[in-house]
Amino acid sequence: MGEIFTYRTSVRYLETDQQGVVFNMWYLGYFDEAMNAYLDARGPGYAEMIARGYDVQLVHSELDWRAALRWQDDAEIAVSPSRIGTTSFTLDFAVRLAGEDDVRVTGRTVYVVVATDGSGKREVPPEMRAALEPVTPLF
Amino acid sequence: MGEIFTYRTSVRYLETDQQGVVFNMWYLGYFDEAMNAYLDARGPGYAEMIARGYDVQLVHSELDWRAALRWQDDAEIAVSPSRIGTTSFTLDFAVRLAGEDDVRVTGRTVYVVVATDGSGKREVPPEMRAALEPVTPLF
Amino acid sequence: MGEIFTYRTSVRYLETDQQGVVFNMWYLGYFDEAMNAYLDARGPGYAEMIARGYDVQLVHSELDWRAALRWQDDAEIAVSPSRIGTTSFTLDFAVRLAGEDDVRVTGRTVYVVVATDGSGKREVPPEMRAALEPVTPLF
Amino acid sequence: MGEIFTYRTSVRYLETDQQGVVFNMWYLGYFDEAMNAYLDARGPGYAEMIARGYDVQLVHSELDWRAALRWQDDAEIAVSPSRIGTTSFTLDFAVRLAGEDDVRVTGRTVYVVVATDGSGKREVPPEMRAALEPVTPLF
Repeated sequence: MGEIFTYRTSVRYLETDQQGVVFNMWYLGYFDEAMNAYLDARGPGYAEMIARGYDVQLVHSELDWRAALRWQDDAEIAVSPSRIGTTSFTLDFAVRLAGEDDVRVTGRTVYVVVATDGSGKREVPPEMRAALEPVTPLF
Repeated sequence: MGEIFTYRTSVRYLETDQQGVVFNMWYLGYFDEAMNAYLDARGPGYAEMIARGYDVQLVHSELDWRAALRWQDDAEIAVSPSRIGTTSFTLDFAVRLAGEDDVRVTGRTVYVVVATDGSGKREVPPEMRAALEPVTPLF
Repeated sequence: MGEIFTYRTSVRYLETDQQGVVFNMWYLGYFDEAMNAYLDARGPGYAEMIARGYDVQLVHSELDWRAALRWQDDAEIAVSPSRIGTTSFTLDFAVRLAGEDDVRVTGRTVYVVVATDGSGKREVPPEMRAALEPVTPLF
Repeated sequence: MGEIFTYRTSVRYLETDQQGVVFNMWYLGYFDEAMNAYLDARGPGYAEMIARGYDVQLVHSELDWRAALRWQDDAEIAVSPSRIGTTSFTLDFAVRLAGEDDVRVTGRTVYVVVATDGSGKREVPPEMRAALEPVTPLF
């Protein structure tokens, strides 16, 4: 099985809005960072993948907010693959405050593998597939 | 019925990433602007609503990307309510290039009405409900 | 002489921070948009310039904040060249609330013209120089 | 004297633009984070200062770019006070790639101490003054 990968980040002042909480769009930024960190930790890395001619594009994302993050909160974002298809894969994200059990925000994003030369979809390359296994949905 | 409300915006240079397309999180920013513009056009306005003690919080959002926007693209974002509940409502968003029929990105966001004093959920106030009717899903 | 060029924009909710005012970095975003709008209005346009093999890089910027902008404020940003050199030029920016005389924020940015192929500095091309004249500092 | 404080950060994908480098405004975001980290490390902390009724506002900032940062670059931002006045103080920033000597970007920002209740300027409080000494300009 293996342990669930966790990406750690802290809320920047500029990410808070006048409600005093993180503005919603930044969670997609956090998930992007968490995806990069996952691939760097488990596989050849996203930058290396690009060097080999592969890139990913988002085709679908969904987010559920249960509670807000605030300035200087230390967040832990669990990242886990929930599906691997022929040309796409899905990552699940779960955001917690460091040291807490309650999940504050969840996300699920579908990525399609494409060629960096603009020629369209590609099969998930073997080294990326290996980095994504085993499929372990978070919710 | 009434016509579908459309919010117009242009892609800023800072919103593009090194793939040369709009980075995914900015679409949530566009939808936030489009929601504000919708409420300003159809109802008392979001700022006025806040002055009356009401605010909204996002609890769910989903996005589907079919094609990318690029720097200086003029975008038209259709906004339409797809559900009105007791304490929440849902807006649909459809992003097109100005003058084109094809939808490039869609979004659907669920907002909960809350009190600005932190005391929790409130019923959708009548003037806001009026601004949201008739319910007309975009997809 | 000619009239001072003015770029209009409105403050987005996402640009405000928990002080309730525009977070400082967004003014550099506004100036970037204002620079693009200036070149589109007065010259061949920045996108066209890039197509011709020229790009610009910031080498220096300074900002002075006298009063804050808030959510939904309509801002008018005056843009005017204050220096044209061999390979660089300087733009002055002055931010006002629409319809007000008081300047809230000023900026001054030095841009260097470079080749898009990475080969370094270029002389300010004639059509760009024409777009920047007459030099009219704002402060 | 004491050692120069250094804040470490990594360039996020979303901070790069279609030139493939960090878009200029994000450096002000980095400096904001670096300022917060400095005050947390040397003094009572910015959040604690706010709790005591003090806040800071930017009145002036200047930036010089010599070389660009790119995606996933690990940056080290030196932070050092270059002036302490009655109601204001100035911080110098110098951005390097981790492990390199060359400075890529410098910044200098003037902060005014204000009351959180909106009543205006305040003298730099003693615990903050202590956190800022000794004055050690970076350039």
